[in-house]
Amino acid sequence: MDDRVRRHAEILVDDCTEIQRGDMVEVRAPTEAEDLVVALYERLGARGARPVTRWANARAGRAYALQMDEDDYVTKEHALAAMEETDAVFLIGGGSNAFETSDVPPAKSQAGSRAHGPVLEERLGKRWVITQHPTAGGAQQAEMSTAAYEEFVYDAIDKDWDEQEAFQANMVELLDPADEVRVVSGDTTDVTMSVAGMDAANDCGDRNMPAGEVFTCPVPDSVEGEVLFDKPLIWQGVEIRGAWLRFEGGEVVDFSADQNEATLEGVLDTDEGSRRLGELGIGMNRDIDRFTYNMLFDEKMGDTVHMAVGGAIEECVPEGQPFNESATHVDMIVDMSEDSYIEVDGEVVQRNGTFVFEDGFEAE
Amino acid sequence: MDDRVRRHAEILVDDCTEIQRGDMVEVRAPTEAEDLVVALYERLGARGARPVTRWANARAGRAYALQMDEDDYVTKEHALAAMEETDAVFLIGGGSNAFETSDVPPAKSQAGSRAHGPVLEERLGKRWVITQHPTAGGAQQAEMSTAAYEEFVYDAIDKDWDEQEAFQANMVELLDPADEVRVVSGDTTDVTMSVAGMDAANDCGDRNMPAGEVFTCPVPDSVEGEVLFDKPLIWQGVEIRGAWLRFEGGEVVDFSADQNEATLEGVLDTDEGSRRLGELGIGMNRDIDRFTYNMLFDEKMGDTVHMAVGGAIEECVPEGQPFNESATHVDMIVDMSEDSYIEVDGEVVQRNGTFVFEDGFEAE
Repeated sequence: MDDRVRRHAEILVDDCTEIQRGDMVEVRAPTEAEDLVVALYERLGARGARPVTRWANARAGRAYALQMDEDDYVTKEHALAAMEETDAVFLIGGGSNAFETSDVPPAKSQAGSRAHGPVLEERLGKRWVITQHPTAGGAQQAEMSTAAYEEFVYDAIDKDWDEQEAFQANMVELLDPADEVRVVSGDTTDVTMSVAGMDAANDCGDRNMPAGEVFTCPVPDSVEGEVLFDKPLIWQGVEIRGAWLRFEGGEVVDFSADQNEATLEGVLDTDEGSRRLGELGIGMNRDIDRFTYNMLFDEKMGDTVHMAVGGAIEECVPEGQPFNESATHVDMIVDMSEDSYIEVDGEVVQRNGTFVFEDGFEAE
Repeated sequence: MDDRVRRHAEILVDDCTEIQRGDMVEVRAPTEAEDLVVALYERLGARGARPVTRWANARAGRAYALQMDEDDYVTKEHALAAMEETDAVFLIGGGSNAFETSDVPPAKSQAGSRAHGPVLEERLGKRWVITQHPTAGGAQQAEMSTAAYEEFVYDAIDKDWDEQEAFQANMVELLDPADEVRVVSGDTTDVTMSVAGMDAANDCGDRNMPAGEVFTCPVPDSVEGEVLFDKPLIWQGVEIRGAWLRFEGGEVVDFSADQNEATLEGVLDTDEGSRRLGELGIGMNRDIDRFTYNMLFDEKMGDTVHMAVGGAIEECVPEGQPFNESATHVDMIVDMSEDSYIEVDGEVVQRNGTFVFEDGFEAE
């Protein structure tokens, strides 16, 4: 086995989730990630943990959804019971075809998400990490050779996370005490939101691997303005391009997309909370130097901002602050590399992708 | 997809487990069985059931066991919690290498079995079926071409199970009211056991697919004599050849094997019940006309008898009868095609593989 796969497993088990003897562990992975699953099991055995693996099988998921009646989507009680007894979860991406579920009607994906809500909520209370095994399918998605894509993935993962944490702390210092954030890009995006009373989090390697963002939660009813998410996103096997949202009083009051608008509509119609923002994130991982059309990586790029419609993140919302509840959480990206800036309480903190605390920053 | 795969899924979902709307379903399968998993999901969607799949991954299991401390094998509480909320289980065989775990020390497999005991016990109280997807690995094990092996598997599965049930009912009639059974083969096997008060079961397509045996449980302390299991068995990736057991007062008091005796010893040492017989089975599926070194098929052959050390089977043991408890259940086969007979209460009911109710039977 490639040594980098073992190193990846070591980071996931020892650093991201700090697995202990007797921990009940759930791994979710597609067939194509078998090498990483084997390496994880090896490491989990060395730690004395007790794993089970759920097979993430998009072909089976599609075949099921096409036959399933929308009204029959109830919560999987056995999956929920298992999650309640679970200490740590490893979510591994890397299937062979990101579009495997592209012909599933949005209403069914939406019903599936709602039914999954309680399992998701339970999982969010555990130690968990989302990561990616580099496969030919992922490389194709990124428009790269498999070998080059492997290098890209492992470079983004196997890095000095302490140094990254220190770099990102600069942004946490600005965002954490802030009241208002404004994001402007070209003449298509100009949105303001309150983050007053929310906690900014430094994502440097526990729940996402690769990590590399600073994120917080907007006050749910405070978002005003419009955003053009100019980078595509793939949601449940469907590529949404050119998603555009207009907010009033925190709620999406108008929307469109250049491609697969019905899927975007399905996301927004999941439940009451899916029309509000649950997250504002600022990408800061400079080792991720290109778009690979995979949100886990794209949202960490230094020249991007992302916002998620749907559920807020517990660690950002202190007791007593308004928490946006939803069974979904869908990240979307704004490219901030040109003609763009982020303002915090009226002060520009990033212009054209360069932060105020980096060389080359220009205030005006 | 091969139509035979869909037909297989239909038999499993509609006939073996009679899946209903809202049923919580667990599938366990190796990667190589993906087509059958997809077909199952399609059928489960049509029935409105809610499935999860546990990935049976022998490579990962081996890597884990080699690192794991023997004392750290505790019950997987999340797997147990899931099983408690599960209505039906599909166990699918068909990996690429039956020997993938052949270098795991027996003591670890044994510790794993013990820890799994409560999950197994819980599963046995559900609707469940064990089946096989025909893969190149299975064909290699059977020493057949993949195409010929596929035909063999589907011929054994897609048959008239009502007719088979009627044929097997002849044997149930003999075995159910019986007090004593004696199995003799050559000069190496001569064993007697009481089955008084036990119920004989007609296996015609609910829990094994293919099915095709009549089985009962011996009274645990009644087994006397010796048995040479002259067909090999593969247990947790290890091939045991020439297993020989001698029973006194129901217990194995002496044993040997020509190959991998240590594995046999590990099985017998699992717990107190693993030194006693939990099952006596008589193969009756005439469509299985060759050994393929896969217990699911071999034990159903018309010319074989099998006995299992370990746990008894609930449906055979009425309330008040002694039940052999064990975390393991390992079937082993005696070839009855030559120089062999089965006696029930002193009367020969099978000679050289031919039953008393079949043409060509010779009493002497």
